Amino acid sequence: MSNALSGLQLRSLVKKSGELEISLQPMNVAEPAADEVVVRVEATPINPSDLGLLFGLADMNTVKATGNATNPVVTAIVPEKFLRGMAARIDQSMPVGNEGAGVVVKAGSSPEAQALLGKTVAMLGGAMYATYRTVKVAQCLVLPSGTTPAEGASCFVNPLTSLGMVETMRREGHTALVHTAAASNLGQMLNRICIKDGVNLVNIVRKPEQEKLLRELGAKYICNSSAPDFMEQLTKALSETGATIAFDAIGGGKLASQILTCMEAAAAAKMTEFSRYGSNTFKQVYIYGGLDRGPTELTRSFGFAWSVSGWLLTPFLQKIGGPAAQKMRERVVAELKTTFASHYTKVISLHEALQPDAIASYAKFGTGEKYLLNPNK
Amino acid sequence: MSNALSGLQLRSLVKKSGELEISLQPMNVAEPAADEVVVRVEATPINPSDLGLLFGLADMNTVKATGNATNPVVTAIVPEKFLRGMAARIDQSMPVGNEGAGVVVKAGSSPEAQALLGKTVAMLGGAMYATYRTVKVAQCLVLPSGTTPAEGASCFVNPLTSLGMVETMRREGHTALVHTAAASNLGQMLNRICIKDGVNLVNIVRKPEQEKLLRELGAKYICNSSAPDFMEQLTKALSETGATIAFDAIGGGKLASQILTCMEAAAAAKMTEFSRYGSNTFKQVYIYGGLDRGPTELTRSFGFAWSVSGWLLTPFLQKIGGPAAQKMRERVVAELKTTFASHYTKVISLHEALQPDAIASYAKFGTGEKYLLNPNK
Repeated sequence: MSNALSGLQLRSLVKKSGELEISLQPMNVAEPAADEVVVRVEATPINPSDLGLLFGLADMNTVKATGNATNPVVTAIVPEKFLRGMAARIDQSMPVGNEGAGVVVKAGSSPEAQALLGKTVAMLGGAMYATYRTVKVAQCLVLPSGTTPAEGASCFVNPLTSLGMVETMRREGHTALVHTAAASNLGQMLNRICIKDGVNLVNIVRKPEQEKLLRELGAKYICNSSAPDFMEQLTKALSETGATIAFDAIGGGKLASQILTCMEAAAAAKMTEFSRYGSNTFKQVYIYGGLDRGPTELTRSFGFAWSVSGWLLTPFLQKIGGPAAQKMRERVVAELKTTFASHYTKVISLHEALQPDAIASYAKFGTGEKYLLNPNK
Repeated sequence: MSNALSGLQLRSLVKKSGELEISLQPMNVAEPAADEVVVRVEATPINPSDLGLLFGLADMNTVKATGNATNPVVTAIVPEKFLRGMAARIDQSMPVGNEGAGVVVKAGSSPEAQALLGKTVAMLGGAMYATYRTVKVAQCLVLPSGTTPAEGASCFVNPLTSLGMVETMRREGHTALVHTAAASNLGQMLNRICIKDGVNLVNIVRKPEQEKLLRELGAKYICNSSAPDFMEQLTKALSETGATIAFDAIGGGKLASQILTCMEAAAAAKMTEFSRYGSNTFKQVYIYGGLDRGPTELTRSFGFAWSVSGWLLTPFLQKIGGPAAQKMRERVVAELKTTFASHYTKVISLHEALQPDAIASYAKFGTGEKYLLNPNK
């Protein structure tokens, strides 16, 4: 005999009119299939990569709380220019939350599922902002005993993304790399990986306190994009490290272009002959985020041997194949409390996640600020 | 006994002060080495790709004629922001002219060189804007008898670039392609190749007369970027052809971004499920020219499976290797008077090339307009 479980699930809906509506919907948890388990979600981070689905590119100045304390509802307006790209989600209520961790409270009939009962597991796969999440056994990453759901909540997105950057660097023949918004949680993690692996990393930040934070973590190359001599700083760091690949979380504005310009200046300084087509040194910037949603502006003052491309974790993992991806996951579990430890500013409940104050705070992408949701708080 | 040859060579100099100076310098032609020949240059095109070296990114509104009829000199001002990237050419007088054709008038002692005496040959390698050009035998492409220097002047840049685009398309797994500034000499050539090879080509132009010109050449897909329904036109053409790679001669502005946006819209229309990361369809824009020197503006409203990169003929030829490149050259010679025929608006002398009126005309990149230099006119 089994007791039916029920709870709440956070939902995001973009209406044809352009109105975004975020709400908490009641959920009834179906009995798990033989190869499934039901996990009580106790920790799920709010990553920058979650906000795209959560807020649907809405104008954050239009965020309004409606509903009441028991049934909070948040609305906002999505600018019309973004609606074209969202056709497939219009009028469809979407669950949110890429990754999370919790305790297995129900298991299907298979021995593999039964073996997980009571275990703390980490999961990737969406719909984590909910009291419960039913997943396949194969989707569960069992955490070593002594690991709390909070410690295992961010096992996938940031760890695999930062490892993926270093792996991409190696696979594409570069020997050092550049990272922007480098004081972020992900940036700090990337620093720990690079220090451990002996890879030179050029960190780009925009505030003195971010410089200080990274310096204290042991970062060697830090350039402040707000400094008047930023271009000189960056060119010098690129000359010293030979970095010709960058991962950019900002996306909008001139930063990607500035990085390419400085990479070219570093390469040109080593050329003995003028070529009006620029150096033959191939320079790559991968844009993996959109902290600045404005257009990317490329001055193209960096020859013809360059590329600016989108970069995304899932296709990258597909490209490198199962065994290589599995090796990365194993490293994450092995170093979960050191290299891949995440730090959170605050732990909030589902209801708290719908309060405008909290939204203003977790959606502003402050340095190193990160919220953890506990749907069972 | 040999008579020493002398003549004139066009030179471009960017001074430290930012002043550009174009002049005609006397040249004395040294005796050719054993494996060299001296070619009397009778036809050399002014390609968009020559103008970069010729004018060094100078502001074309500052062009001034100084000197006199016998020794004409042209000056202009290079904006300071471009000087940084030109460090290696500052205060060095540079010869100009990527390609040309002429008659071999002197030959070195080797049998291979001697065999070329009197032959009409095409050449690639710079410094063609001169009365004479000394080249290695291996650099000469002997033209079939009955071919004039004017017919063979453009054997390399446009033919190999347009063939290189189709070859890049195939090698990178695309099946149809997009071309901008499509009514250009190069664009017309690309149309002839694609029609002959049965490849779907989406031509982007910006004027009705360019549409008409391409229509008359047999082009099937033509989109006018000035039309109010350009985005719809382009999306439709991309849906029909499945083109996911574009070659862009413009560089600056929003066109590259618009192409990616329409490619994504064409791909998204075939998706059954919403993904906030966009489609998995990989979309590539190669920028191979800079008709608009302004910044490239990418809105990034096209998911994460995209790349915008520089594309240049020489590294492409190096990448595909000698035999593949040779096969392309052989095709050019075989189809020189059909697929790869070039048309010129006007034939001018070296002196005429330094007249401000002529400069204003050949530097404006008018549709299908192209000047041919005859240094022996």
